[in-house]
Amino acid sequence: MSGSSYGQIFKLTTFGESHGVAIGGIIEGFPSNFALDLVAVQQALDKRRPGQSSLVSPRNEKDQLEILSGIFDGKTTGSPIAFLIKNQDQQSKDYQQLKDTFRPSHADFTYQQKYGNRDHRGGGRSSARETACRVVAGAIAAQALQKLGVKASTFVDQIGAVQLQSQQWFSTEQIEASPLRCPDSVISAQMEVLVKEIQQNGDTIGGSIRSVIEGVPAGWGEPVFDKLHAELGKAMLSINAVKGFEIGSGFAAIQMKGSVHNDQFLSDGSTATNHSGGIQGGISNGMPITFRVAFKPVASITQPQEVLAQDGQLKELAIEGRHDACVVPRAVPIVEAMAHIVLFDFYLRQQRNTLFL
Amino acid sequence: MSGSSYGQIFKLTTFGESHGVAIGGIIEGFPSNFALDLVAVQQALDKRRPGQSSLVSPRNEKDQLEILSGIFDGKTTGSPIAFLIKNQDQQSKDYQQLKDTFRPSHADFTYQQKYGNRDHRGGGRSSARETACRVVAGAIAAQALQKLGVKASTFVDQIGAVQLQSQQWFSTEQIEASPLRCPDSVISAQMEVLVKEIQQNGDTIGGSIRSVIEGVPAGWGEPVFDKLHAELGKAMLSINAVKGFEIGSGFAAIQMKGSVHNDQFLSDGSTATNHSGGIQGGISNGMPITFRVAFKPVASITQPQEVLAQDGQLKELAIEGRHDACVVPRAVPIVEAMAHIVLFDFYLRQQRNTLFL
Amino acid sequence: MSGSSYGQIFKLTTFGESHGVAIGGIIEGFPSNFALDLVAVQQALDKRRPGQSSLVSPRNEKDQLEILSGIFDGKTTGSPIAFLIKNQDQQSKDYQQLKDTFRPSHADFTYQQKYGNRDHRGGGRSSARETACRVVAGAIAAQALQKLGVKASTFVDQIGAVQLQSQQWFSTEQIEASPLRCPDSVISAQMEVLVKEIQQNGDTIGGSIRSVIEGVPAGWGEPVFDKLHAELGKAMLSINAVKGFEIGSGFAAIQMKGSVHNDQFLSDGSTATNHSGGIQGGISNGMPITFRVAFKPVASITQPQEVLAQDGQLKELAIEGRHDACVVPRAVPIVEAMAHIVLFDFYLRQQRNTLFL
Amino acid sequence: MSGSSYGQIFKLTTFGESHGVAIGGIIEGFPSNFALDLVAVQQALDKRRPGQSSLVSPRNEKDQLEILSGIFDGKTTGSPIAFLIKNQDQQSKDYQQLKDTFRPSHADFTYQQKYGNRDHRGGGRSSARETACRVVAGAIAAQALQKLGVKASTFVDQIGAVQLQSQQWFSTEQIEASPLRCPDSVISAQMEVLVKEIQQNGDTIGGSIRSVIEGVPAGWGEPVFDKLHAELGKAMLSINAVKGFEIGSGFAAIQMKGSVHNDQFLSDGSTATNHSGGIQGGISNGMPITFRVAFKPVASITQPQEVLAQDGQLKELAIEGRHDACVVPRAVPIVEAMAHIVLFDFYLRQQRNTLFL
Repeated sequence: MSGSSYGQIFKLTTFGESHGVAIGGIIEGFPSNFALDLVAVQQALDKRRPGQSSLVSPRNEKDQLEILSGIFDGKTTGSPIAFLIKNQDQQSKDYQQLKDTFRPSHADFTYQQKYGNRDHRGGGRSSARETACRVVAGAIAAQALQKLGVKASTFVDQIGAVQLQSQQWFSTEQIEASPLRCPDSVISAQMEVLVKEIQQNGDTIGGSIRSVIEGVPAGWGEPVFDKLHAELGKAMLSINAVKGFEIGSGFAAIQMKGSVHNDQFLSDGSTATNHSGGIQGGISNGMPITFRVAFKPVASITQPQEVLAQDGQLKELAIEGRHDACVVPRAVPIVEAMAHIVLFDFYLRQQRNTLFL
Repeated sequence: MSGSSYGQIFKLTTFGESHGVAIGGIIEGFPSNFALDLVAVQQALDKRRPGQSSLVSPRNEKDQLEILSGIFDGKTTGSPIAFLIKNQDQQSKDYQQLKDTFRPSHADFTYQQKYGNRDHRGGGRSSARETACRVVAGAIAAQALQKLGVKASTFVDQIGAVQLQSQQWFSTEQIEASPLRCPDSVISAQMEVLVKEIQQNGDTIGGSIRSVIEGVPAGWGEPVFDKLHAELGKAMLSINAVKGFEIGSGFAAIQMKGSVHNDQFLSDGSTATNHSGGIQGGISNGMPITFRVAFKPVASITQPQEVLAQDGQLKELAIEGRHDACVVPRAVPIVEAMAHIVLFDFYLRQQRNTLFL
Repeated sequence: MSGSSYGQIFKLTTFGESHGVAIGGIIEGFPSNFALDLVAVQQALDKRRPGQSSLVSPRNEKDQLEILSGIFDGKTTGSPIAFLIKNQDQQSKDYQQLKDTFRPSHADFTYQQKYGNRDHRGGGRSSARETACRVVAGAIAAQALQKLGVKASTFVDQIGAVQLQSQQWFSTEQIEASPLRCPDSVISAQMEVLVKEIQQNGDTIGGSIRSVIEGVPAGWGEPVFDKLHAELGKAMLSINAVKGFEIGSGFAAIQMKGSVHNDQFLSDGSTATNHSGGIQGGISNGMPITFRVAFKPVASITQPQEVLAQDGQLKELAIEGRHDACVVPRAVPIVEAMAHIVLFDFYLRQQRNTLFL
Repeated sequence: MSGSSYGQIFKLTTFGESHGVAIGGIIEGFPSNFALDLVAVQQALDKRRPGQSSLVSPRNEKDQLEILSGIFDGKTTGSPIAFLIKNQDQQSKDYQQLKDTFRPSHADFTYQQKYGNRDHRGGGRSSARETACRVVAGAIAAQALQKLGVKASTFVDQIGAVQLQSQQWFSTEQIEASPLRCPDSVISAQMEVLVKEIQQNGDTIGGSIRSVIEGVPAGWGEPVFDKLHAELGKAMLSINAVKGFEIGSGFAAIQMKGSVHNDQFLSDGSTATNHSGGIQGGISNGMPITFRVAFKPVASITQPQEVLAQDGQLKELAIEGRHDACVVPRAVPIVEAMAHIVLFDFYLRQQRNTLFL
C-alpha cells in the first residue's frame, strides 16, 4: 500500500532516505536451505556504486551490505532476510541550499504536495540511492535463478543518438569491458566521446538499456492483469528516470503487419522469430525474454537554472553536489536486479498451478 | 496472486472465458452513497463492442451489463459491486479446428504449458473479451473521478505509418466523430484507407493510443515501487496486444539533454513544458498526465499460416472466425478504463497520507 | 481491503446481499487439472440450507449452485472459478418494518454508521446468507484436501448447558444421525428437548462447535503473524454470531501447569497428549488439529423487544420472519468450510518453502 | 505471504531471530506530519522487557530502539519507519544443548519439519523476543489513536485459578501498581503467592489478559471476513502461548438466551448491556470494546523432562536459560500493542468508505 514493497511471494520491502542513518530492506519468501553467496551480493552492489570511472559520479559511498537475519550457518532459514546499508558519505550541507526550493523535474515539489513535508536532503526517499536495496534483492534472486538455468544479459544500447541495434545475448565480460556497459567497443567509444562532451557542458543526456534473458521455461507469468511483461514493465518504470518500456517488437510493432509480426512455430515449440519477446498472452513461451528501457537525462545539471522557492519566487541556482552526466551505465545492475526479482517471484507463483497434474 | 485482480483499495477481480457461460467481476472499495449512472456504464461497454463499423469485427455480442450486488435504491452501499455479462453469441464450432493446435503469437501454447490444459474455445481466459470487465470498472471509477474534476481524452494517434503527432486534449465528440477514433479528420481518412487495404489482404496492422488526462491534482501516486506511471504502465501492458508504454517524453528522452528536458517551473507551481508527462518521482504534479501505448497487429489473420499441432506437427491453417484488421480503435475505451481504475485507486490511497496535517 | 476476501493463494472473494439478485463469489488459486465433483459441492450447500428439520428455520431457499467459469470438460483450468446462487425466496416485505429501525444486537446500526446507508432487507450484506459462499469454496478445497489425506470431523458439542465433552473424531454418519449434529445420541436428545423449549418461548440459545482434523502433516502454517491457529481463529470469528475461539487446551490452559500442559514426545515425533491442538509455534506438528468455536444466541427473537428508530425513538417490536432457535447445527458446515479454506491455503503456501531442500 | 507482516494500510513487517544480530521491522502507512514521541515508544518497550521484578525472567536485555528512517525533524514523513533493536545479551551457549533436540511444546520440531533447517539458538524466529517489534509499532499507533480519543486498559485478569472478574476500565497507574499487572491489590497479592510457589517448583502456570478499550467510534471494522473482532482475534492468537480469544460475552454466550444476550438500545444509540463487546456485525458500535486472551503455561520449565533428539531418541533434559514462571504480566504490553495496531489500521481503512457522503 505505501509503495515500498515489490513482489507477491518473493517480496522486497525497502526503507531509508538518501541522507538518513541507513537504507535497507526485508526480503520475504526466499526458500530455506539455500547457501547464499554474500560476496556475490556485495559485488552486485559495487557495480551500482558511483565512483567507478571518470564518467560517473565521484561520490565514494561504500555501500557495505549488513545482513541482520534470515541466514544461519550460511544457509537461508526461510525467515525474512533483513539487511541494511549505512549511509556513510552524507554531505548534507551540499543540500542545505535546497531546503526551501524545488528543483525542476525532481520530486521535491511532488513529495511536498503529497505529504505536507519532506526530507529535502539529497532527495530523501526519492533519491536513486534507494535502488541499492533492489540490487541486493535482485542479486539474491539471481542465485536461485541461476540454479534454475536462467541467465540475463543487460547492457546499454543507446546514449543520445549513439545506438547499438542488437538483441544478442552478451556475456558479463563483454559488457563490463566497456566503461559505459555497451558491449560493442566501437559504439562504446562513440558513447564515451558524447558523454564527456555533455559532462563538460554541465549537462546530462538520456539513454536506454536492453535486457536479454535466456533459460526461462514456458509457463511463467499470470493471466490477465499480472502478465509477465506487464510486471516487468512496472518494475522498470519504477526505477528513477525511466520514461518508457517495450517488450519484443515494442513500438516498432505499430508499423508492422500481422503476417510479418506473427512468430511462426518450429516443430519443437520454439519460434522462427521473436517479436513476442519471449512472452505470449503474458506467459513465457521458452524463447529469450527481451525488453528495452528508456531513461531521461538526469535532472541534476550543473548549469544554472531556475528553481521554485517555497514562497512562490523563482530564482536562479546552480545545483551543486556530484551527479552523473549519463545515469544509464550505473542503471544496468538496477534493471537486471528488477528483472531477477520479477522472474523469481513468477517462478514461485507458478509452483502451485499444476500440483494435481 | 492469480493475476485476475487489479488495484489496492479500488479493486477489480474478473472471471470468465470467451465462450463460457458469462464473464464478469467484483469491484471492491468503491465508497458508499454514490448515485451510479448505470446507463453510462452500459454506453461505455457499447463503445468497446465489436460490430460498430465495417472496419471492425462484425460479431454481434450484446454485452448486456447485469449488476448483482452492492447498489441499493440507486446508490452504492460500500459493499462489493458484482456484475456479469452473459456470453450470448458463442459460436464455439468456429473454434473446433483449434482444439489440438496452437496458433502463432496467440496464448494457446503458453496456457497449455502453464496449466497442462486449457479452454481452447476462442482463447478462453486469454481472449480480449475479458477486457469488457475492465470497461465496466473503469466507467464506474470515471464517474467518481468526474466529480473530482478529472477528465481524460484518449484517442488513436497512429496506425501503421499514419501518425497524429499531438498531445492535445480532444473532446469525446472530436474523437467519436472518427470511425477509427482519431480526432484529426484528415489523418483519420488516411488511416481508413490503410485499414481497408490491410483488411482486403486478410492481414492486420499495429497502432498506438495516446491518453491525455487533465484535472489530476498534485500528490497522487506512491513512492518507489508504486509510482503512478509505473502502475499506469502495468495497467496498459496488461491489455491484450500491447507491446510498449511511454510516459511524457518517453523514448524520445533517450536523445534529449537535461537542460532541454527539465520542465522549468512557473511561479504558480505549474511547468513551462511537460516532458515529465504530469508525473515527477512517481507522483502527479498537477500538469496533464500524458502517455502512449503501442499495440502489435492482432495475431488472428485470415491469410493461411502454419500452426503447431499438439503432436508436434506443423500444418497450414486459415484461421476462421471474425477478427479486426486493426484492434486499436476498439482498444480506446479499454485504455481509458484502465487509466481510470489506476487513478481512482491512487486517489483513495492518497486520502490517508495527510490525516494529521 | 473491503473485507470480502479470504486467503492468500487459495482465495475466496464474495459478494451479494440477502435479498438482492444473487450471492456468489470468485475462487482464485485452485490448481489446474482437478476433476471437481460439483454434486458434492451442492450437497455441502444443502447441509447449510434452512428447512431441514422442525428445529431450524423453515425458509425454503433452494441455494442452487451455478458455476460461471474456471471449469472446462469437468476439470479446473487454473482460472478463477466464479459461481452464483440466486436469491429465490426473497420475502422482502417481511423486512419492510425494519427499514427505519435498528434491531438490538444486529448489524443494522453499525452498517448505517459505517456507510451512511444500507440495504435493510434481511440484513443485506450482514446476513448469514453470505456464508453459503464460504460453503462452496470450502467444499472445493475439501476435495483437494481429501486427496492429501486430510479429513475433518465437525460437530455440535454444546447447546446451552448440555455439553458433549469429547475431542474424538466422529464420522459424518455419526454426526448426521443427529438432527442437531451432535454425534452422541443421548446428549443430542437432551439438546432437542432444550431447543424445543427455547423455540416455544420465542427465544434463542447459544452453543458451540468442535472440529477435529486428522491427516494434516507437520509444516503447515506460517511463523509470527500468520500462525495456523491465528488464521483458523480469524476464520471462525468471521462467521456470524461467533464470540470465541480456542485451540487445543484453550481457556482451560489458564489453570494448567507447564509440567502438565507440555505434550511429551514419543519417539516417532508424535506426542503423548495434545494440549497443543496439533499446532506448535503456529505450525502443524502432525497431530490432530482440534479447536472449539462459541456462538451467541441469535439476536432475532420473536418475543417483542424494543428497537431504535432512525429518529432516536425506542419502540416495541416483535421481529417477524423465520429464524432459528439455535443456529449452531446449521453452522457446522460453515465452520468446516472455513477450516478447509484455511488449511488448503496453508498447504499451497507451504509448497514454496523447501524448493531447494 | 511469509507470515511476517500485519495490517493492510498501517502495516508492520518484522524480522530477526532471538540470537541473531538484531530484530526489527518496517512500519508502513503511518500518515505524515505527526510529531512522534520516541521516548514513549522506548518506555513501552521497557514495559515488555524481562528483568523488571523477581517474578519475571532476570535477563537483562536492553532493547534499545534505533529508528533508521521515516522521521525527519521529529515528524513522520509518510515514508516507511524502519527500526531495529540489537540483540545485546545473546548467551547462545545456554542453547548449545538444544542444537539437535526438540523441546516439548516448543516450535523446534515444527520449524525443522517446515523448513528443513532452523536457527536453534533460543528459538530463533519463534522466540517471543520477536514481540518487541510489535510493541514498537503498537506504541506508534497508540499515539495516533490517543489523538483520536481511543484509550485502552489492558490487565492480567487471571493466573491459575486466581481470577479478577471485571470488565472495568482501569488506569495505567492502577495496573502498573501491581507487579503482576492485576489492578486489584488483593487478587494481585494472591497471584503473587501462586506464582512464587510455581517458580519454586521449577514449573510454570497459565493466565489470561483482558483489554477494555474506550473511545472507538461506531464504524470501524469491515464486513464479512475482516470483522473487527476476527482481526483482533487473529492478532491475539498470533502472540506466543495464546490458546484462546473471546469477545464480549465470549464462551459464556453458549449458555445464554437471546432475550438476555441482546444488548437493548438506549435512545442515544448506546446499549444498556455490552454482551457484544462493542462490536456488532464485525463493526464497532461506539460501546467499549472488550475481549479476553487465554495464555498457556510457558513450555520452558526447569524441571527435567524428556526431549526428542534429531535421531529419534528420547532423553531427559533440564532446560537451562532464564524463563518466566508466568508470562502473562509481560504479555500485557504485547496484547495492548496488537490491539492498537489492529484498531489504527481499521481507522485508516474506514477513511475511504464515506468520501461521497
